[in-house]
Amino acid sequence: MSTITDYIDANKETFREELFAFLRIPSISTSSEHKNDICDAARFLLDKLESLNMDRTELFETDGNPIVYGELTTDPAHPTVLVYGHYDVQPPDPLELWKTAPFEPTVRDGNIYARGASDDKGQSFTHLKAVESYLASGESFPVNIKFIFEGEEEIGSPHLVPFIEAHEELLACDMVLISDTAMFAEDTPSITYGLRGLAYMEVEVEGPNRDLHSGVYGGAVENPANVLAGIIARLKDKDGIIQIPGFYDDVKDLTDEEREAYRQLPFDESAYKKTLGVDALHGEKGYSTLERATARPTLDVNGLWSGYQGEGAKTVLPSNAGAKISMRLVPDQDPQKIARLFAEQVESLAPDTVSVTVTEHHGGQPAITDLSFYGLQAAADAFEAVYGREPLFTREGGSIPIVADFQQLLGAQSILMGFGLNSDAIHSPNEKFALKDFYRGIQTSARFFEFLPKYS
Amino acid sequence: MSTITDYIDANKETFREELFAFLRIPSISTSSEHKNDICDAARFLLDKLESLNMDRTELFETDGNPIVYGELTTDPAHPTVLVYGHYDVQPPDPLELWKTAPFEPTVRDGNIYARGASDDKGQSFTHLKAVESYLASGESFPVNIKFIFEGEEEIGSPHLVPFIEAHEELLACDMVLISDTAMFAEDTPSITYGLRGLAYMEVEVEGPNRDLHSGVYGGAVENPANVLAGIIARLKDKDGIIQIPGFYDDVKDLTDEEREAYRQLPFDESAYKKTLGVDALHGEKGYSTLERATARPTLDVNGLWSGYQGEGAKTVLPSNAGAKISMRLVPDQDPQKIARLFAEQVESLAPDTVSVTVTEHHGGQPAITDLSFYGLQAAADAFEAVYGREPLFTREGGSIPIVADFQQLLGAQSILMGFGLNSDAIHSPNEKFALKDFYRGIQTSARFFEFLPKYS
Repeated sequence: MSTITDYIDANKETFREELFAFLRIPSISTSSEHKNDICDAARFLLDKLESLNMDRTELFETDGNPIVYGELTTDPAHPTVLVYGHYDVQPPDPLELWKTAPFEPTVRDGNIYARGASDDKGQSFTHLKAVESYLASGESFPVNIKFIFEGEEEIGSPHLVPFIEAHEELLACDMVLISDTAMFAEDTPSITYGLRGLAYMEVEVEGPNRDLHSGVYGGAVENPANVLAGIIARLKDKDGIIQIPGFYDDVKDLTDEEREAYRQLPFDESAYKKTLGVDALHGEKGYSTLERATARPTLDVNGLWSGYQGEGAKTVLPSNAGAKISMRLVPDQDPQKIARLFAEQVESLAPDTVSVTVTEHHGGQPAITDLSFYGLQAAADAFEAVYGREPLFTREGGSIPIVADFQQLLGAQSILMGFGLNSDAIHSPNEKFALKDFYRGIQTSARFFEFLPKYS
Repeated sequence: MSTITDYIDANKETFREELFAFLRIPSISTSSEHKNDICDAARFLLDKLESLNMDRTELFETDGNPIVYGELTTDPAHPTVLVYGHYDVQPPDPLELWKTAPFEPTVRDGNIYARGASDDKGQSFTHLKAVESYLASGESFPVNIKFIFEGEEEIGSPHLVPFIEAHEELLACDMVLISDTAMFAEDTPSITYGLRGLAYMEVEVEGPNRDLHSGVYGGAVENPANVLAGIIARLKDKDGIIQIPGFYDDVKDLTDEEREAYRQLPFDESAYKKTLGVDALHGEKGYSTLERATARPTLDVNGLWSGYQGEGAKTVLPSNAGAKISMRLVPDQDPQKIARLFAEQVESLAPDTVSVTVTEHHGGQPAITDLSFYGLQAAADAFEAVYGREPLFTREGGSIPIVADFQQLLGAQSILMGFGLNSDAIHSPNEKFALKDFYRGIQTSARFFEFLPKYS
């Protein structure tokens, strides 16, 4: 193994430069104006895969953004690992809060600052570089490897499931390897075995057919913004309990063992609050902060708009108001069912003085990986070899809906090997990824491939 | 009088062209980027006043936008009328809803479409043209006239009151003449004797120090947008009663006579709903639609913002949320007191998990003109002479805070001679002013000057 380790050490600068080139592409999937950048990012990955001399590399067009694929079969008897990553990123807004430009990667204090540095370009690139290092160092590669990179993760992967369904044989594997999660804390390697699902909704309240003068009509005509506020307010009670009939019906409660494991996690609530700049936390009554953030469902406003948002005062009674509202889900909640219950409840809360439309954006199933799965053991050993300590097994609050899809469509469990940190500010200004974890990620991935055969 | 009437008729086209030139200036006071346009509009009026050969014309600089002044004393024994108007306009947003450009006045179906057509360039310009017509036709002008035009009405006239205080002698008058209100209905001349006041507030809720990933933190960290919705929702109950302690303490109830007069007004509620495109109305329990819109206080959200408002879905837990909320006030509510009560209530509703800031934009006193005031009789006669019917005496829901200020500082009552319509869409896209009412406005103003001496 030392030749591979040495190869990785010797090529740090090259790897970093390659990642920087990847990060410079503003491959934002949430707005259509970045279509060309999306294609550039896909082609960038295809070039990288092609340079590995794999058995097959291909860029698959979809009705949305392309899917990049590569495979290398070393021996049919070897276990097959499907590496999944996404090359699309979140929008960088609000731009003015970035210390350096989001698409000009910069190293400060040992961190790479750029949109996508952690989520997910930097993290997923580690596996590509691990495979390259293995192959370049002349060692025989001990697993069969497949790569699949999509460009629509941040908009709910609308074309990935149809693609998997249409390519079940191509993608057949023994497990999926994903680095799109965070370590529990710095230098604390973690394997995520549970993920929350998502139902993401948009609520539009329409009142009068135009913006009205609030002096002339105020008091006599229902105000859509006031109505929207009332609807949102009634979706949760003061104890943080979500007020949608049936919402909790399918929630699998945490086991006593899990709650005990939660209590053992090294968590400093006052440091957590300090990092966020808040004096007090708030969440569902009866649960700890970590439980609330990872193993309990939520309802959050993600966006809100109505009327005049500019400087000064405009005396307008707005003709409409809207909100983006999403719910994080836990096993065994079903996003479709929750979306329906949400829509029914919102519609039932709407007065007849306005018209309310509820639409569904993307959703995703929650997921749990079996703690006894052999791939997890190999991953744990790899972490220990590189980080010098056993990883924690944790649940994460975020959603990677594709994990449930891989389970369902390919019968493959996922290994969520996180190299990022919760403080990486993914989806926020000044997203970062620790340079040392980029390199340790490559090393850990290489060791995982090394260790896997002995457990299979 | 017929020479003046003839002069007005003969000069319709010129008057319209002059108004169009005035309307082409985008003198928006709510945003600082239109400073030059503001100055252009002020200079435009100054030029018009100068061309009347008045005794004095002057452009007064203030710490904000300039005040344009002109005076003509015909005989110290004559009554002195101070004409007030404002040359600033509301922003035209949302721009995409205008059928023709807001600052390119266009005539369609007998209406002038432009921002400011009705509020207040078109309406206030009538008095300038009436005086011009009087003077040009060689008739001796039967009153002393003063003009004052300000450029900050849409942002609460912050520099007008100090100006009046500093120029009490200059502005001394027997009454103020203002055309910045609406007729009750088409061809239904109306004199407004009551106006609502205003307290306009901004509420900012600050949560975590940056936008967070709603998966990673959702459920554990308070969401400022959810909090803001909760605060707004609790400011009014389901019967439309405002839930701010002390809010109604100083409200003067409508007299039985006034409520009876309201019932006599020709009001077609189903046409009103149809025009607004709403199926049902909603307001304070126990009052009619007209009472709610004009004689009862309100609380309306004017603007709302938080998090991601773009296309698609962004899973963000926003770091802050804000709202503009204004209250229309009725006699004898005091804007300062109401602003304080509002701030106290909002702060008391805020949980300790966020920080809430309440700031006050402009406010304005409600006002009532004495129904027995002699100026109102002259105005009524003028309307009858031009429109062929007696005007209605009504209250309006909008605020012209300066009416209360003139009363208080100059001891002068205001005559609110409205030539606009409530359907003029002031503050909305496609603002309009009927061309025939622009001309009838000039005629009515001229007759008012003619009739006034016989009542004084």
